[in-house]
Amino acid sequence: MFPFPQLSAAEAAELIRPNEIVGVSGFTLAGYPKAVPQALAERTERLHANGEEFQITLFSGASTGDECDGALARAHAIHWRAPYQSNKNLRSAINCGEVHYTDAHLGMMGRLVRTGALPTPTTAIIEVTDVTADGKIRLSMSCGNSVEFLQRADRVILELNSLYGDALFGMHDCYLPELPPHASPIPVSQVLDRAGNDFVQIDPKKIVGVVRTNVGDSIRPFTEPDAISQTIAGHILEFLAHERKKGRLPANLPYQSGVGNVANAVLTAMARDSKQEPVSLFTEVIQEAVFELIQNDKLVGASGTALTCSSNAREYLKADANALKKKFILRAQEVSNHPEVIRRLGVISMNTALELDIFGNVNSSHVCGSSIMNGIGGAADFSRNALLGFFMTPSTAKDGTISAVVPYVSHVDHTDHETNIFVTEQGLADLRGLDPVSRARLIIDRCAHPAYRPQLNVFLNYSLNSAKGKHIPIALDRAFNMHLRFLSTGTMAE
Amino acid sequence: MFPFPQLSAAEAAELIRPNEIVGVSGFTLAGYPKAVPQALAERTERLHANGEEFQITLFSGASTGDECDGALARAHAIHWRAPYQSNKNLRSAINCGEVHYTDAHLGMMGRLVRTGALPTPTTAIIEVTDVTADGKIRLSMSCGNSVEFLQRADRVILELNSLYGDALFGMHDCYLPELPPHASPIPVSQVLDRAGNDFVQIDPKKIVGVVRTNVGDSIRPFTEPDAISQTIAGHILEFLAHERKKGRLPANLPYQSGVGNVANAVLTAMARDSKQEPVSLFTEVIQEAVFELIQNDKLVGASGTALTCSSNAREYLKADANALKKKFILRAQEVSNHPEVIRRLGVISMNTALELDIFGNVNSSHVCGSSIMNGIGGAADFSRNALLGFFMTPSTAKDGTISAVVPYVSHVDHTDHETNIFVTEQGLADLRGLDPVSRARLIIDRCAHPAYRPQLNVFLNYSLNSAKGKHIPIALDRAFNMHLRFLSTGTMAE
Repeated sequence: MFPFPQLSAAEAAELIRPNEIVGVSGFTLAGYPKAVPQALAERTERLHANGEEFQITLFSGASTGDECDGALARAHAIHWRAPYQSNKNLRSAINCGEVHYTDAHLGMMGRLVRTGALPTPTTAIIEVTDVTADGKIRLSMSCGNSVEFLQRADRVILELNSLYGDALFGMHDCYLPELPPHASPIPVSQVLDRAGNDFVQIDPKKIVGVVRTNVGDSIRPFTEPDAISQTIAGHILEFLAHERKKGRLPANLPYQSGVGNVANAVLTAMARDSKQEPVSLFTEVIQEAVFELIQNDKLVGASGTALTCSSNAREYLKADANALKKKFILRAQEVSNHPEVIRRLGVISMNTALELDIFGNVNSSHVCGSSIMNGIGGAADFSRNALLGFFMTPSTAKDGTISAVVPYVSHVDHTDHETNIFVTEQGLADLRGLDPVSRARLIIDRCAHPAYRPQLNVFLNYSLNSAKGKHIPIALDRAFNMHLRFLSTGTMAE
Repeated sequence: MFPFPQLSAAEAAELIRPNEIVGVSGFTLAGYPKAVPQALAERTERLHANGEEFQITLFSGASTGDECDGALARAHAIHWRAPYQSNKNLRSAINCGEVHYTDAHLGMMGRLVRTGALPTPTTAIIEVTDVTADGKIRLSMSCGNSVEFLQRADRVILELNSLYGDALFGMHDCYLPELPPHASPIPVSQVLDRAGNDFVQIDPKKIVGVVRTNVGDSIRPFTEPDAISQTIAGHILEFLAHERKKGRLPANLPYQSGVGNVANAVLTAMARDSKQEPVSLFTEVIQEAVFELIQNDKLVGASGTALTCSSNAREYLKADANALKKKFILRAQEVSNHPEVIRRLGVISMNTALELDIFGNVNSSHVCGSSIMNGIGGAADFSRNALLGFFMTPSTAKDGTISAVVPYVSHVDHTDHETNIFVTEQGLADLRGLDPVSRARLIIDRCAHPAYRPQLNVFLNYSLNSAKGKHIPIALDRAFNMHLRFLSTGTMAE
């Protein structure tokens, strides 16, 4: 009936070899393995206590929960991590130089593995909701890079999670684009188009262990948007209405909505606006705000690579799974984040920035240029190919000691060549077609916090006088002065 | 027979209205209008001499020749220019702040116009080789954004160039991708696949004038690659052979080759290598080195948006046009540079960098962060979506006073998230999968000129000690010290 070895998490963890490359399921805390990584962390601690060396390389879809990234980081079990994380212990380990980290575009990771640009995981640890004797695997709350890892790894360990029953069956589309030189177009031209099977077929002989689990993803409940996020959302919705009125924005383009409070606030505002037409999402992570859209009859459909649900939302989903799951598709992140499909669909992207500069560059990954926050994620997959793209952030952070608008970002993730619209609670700057000096004046005026506008204007005027070229008048000798002041005094304010 | 008003260049130039947005043909000195822009420059000078104001906005495919960009810049006729230029007078006008310049990804420009993100040209001035009474237009040496401008402009002025006869008929593929929300896949899966007609159909009533010309593009003859370019080409070919041997690179992937000496040197080296299999090009500009590939039976086919020929190569092409043009397709730059097709085909990209930094970022557009050189061009369209991407440059410039390898690039065009391989005449650094510190050590060791390695190592060690985070240990207080030294002393050397 069930021909695979049933193992305890500890037994499965014993199968992992030192220095092995392990590919795990999981994307932004959705659908990651929980039991085996924790057992592997315990095993590592025991080995280290005995003076034995033991580390692995960990590849994933994106971030995983504390039971995986956190536990393994605390056990010093990770030598190399790619392509994304959001765990405080792992972040610290990367930023003190203990863990090697490859911060990659999420839509590229699977392709990098499949083409050999990155090494292939030898063991895959994947959370699933079903496996058949002939090797048909049904995934849980994310698709991520699980298809690639399942197909490519020599050995597969499954965490068979009984929490979902058959509620998620049929929600996934496990298609992967063919590889060059024999690739053909990706057959997705509408948000809910399907291109493949809802299961992953693998050679069942590769399944070396099945560990039974029954725990959900550790996702915090949805919180009401705060006033600043609501104000930012208001600016965006007002601008979208304005662009439609001007005839510059076709109706019914799908939205991509980054992870975080501000993006959730935009969806929530749409859900609560009685005049809002139903929307489509073609995004990376389908966040919990989608359920309010559904309850208010404002969702046409949502495509992503992960669905993040707190326990409440999970129960809601399970209770009405057959109706709800027709609205969702979870795809491989190579497809959810693929430029081909994003351009074809004309996605409107909305991503959170860590800092914006006056010339139009965006930092979404590094604090003061050197400390990783999470990673670039899929922001550039979307913003570079969107029909219209927003970068949004509160204008200040840490009680006003940090200005999100700076003379020059300390790390460039999105260049001035491709950014469109900047939004803070102060206002919105439409950068399209503007030269750098015009951009600088508009961003300072519309997006910077009033407390920081004087020093940004002083920088711009100094630069206009002193920079060798006036195309992008950036005075390199003062470009990072606000960051340097923060590093030495704890505030960017003068 | 020929129902369109035949005008002199001066008469056509009189049709242009002040402050009009004019869209011209032309891509990297191929197929740009020559007579009308020069006449417009003369008219502008006369108007200015009389104290009258007159300027236009100039949109193009990419750079145009001195008869267009140069003449109009010298006449102070350009208020706003997009998306690319390479003319010394226009460059100066941009860098002194006289001309507003939008430096855009070339693959995006047509889409920005078609979706209304940029304004639509009201008059198009297009060099053609034929026009029929019912409005079928055949383009000359480039496709660029001519299809978009011809279709969208209210009025069309044609420069009917008799130099080519019917030699270019059938070489173009004038297909444009549909726009969202009704777009479908671009039907190009092989280099020589055709998707549309070889002519552009427009409403003949829009043609307000035809100016007859008989002059070729001002392109300098091909020069033999210098020793440094040959060395860089050698590193690249050796690496490609190594990757094929390792099984990481399928045979027969097409190449994109940027504009310039180094890229030409790579193609020349392929043409002269007796063991080289025939290659395909899926590129932006088909440069003259392609003819040596053809003569040595090493070209399967070449797709681009422009074909740059000096007068010698032009005569060669015309003499054997029927055979040769089966090897070429000129597409709209929205297609030649489209991520969808570039990823599908698995293009190997090779682009020139202005500077590279030790953490993996590339500057291809701005000197010391502030002065535009040409623009980003199509480099990011290709490098971001290539299966394997090279950035290449001599390790020093200006007699060794400038190091191409710096602590931090003064403008970021290509981020550390997507760059693959750096090459100088010193050597090659494969950055794939490396964390930032490992990248820094490798780039200094392999790519930097020996004269600059000590100060780059001093920076890296200082940064490792002083930067707050060790993920990208960048000391912001010294990040631009090499540039600042160059600006104040004329050399980056200590």
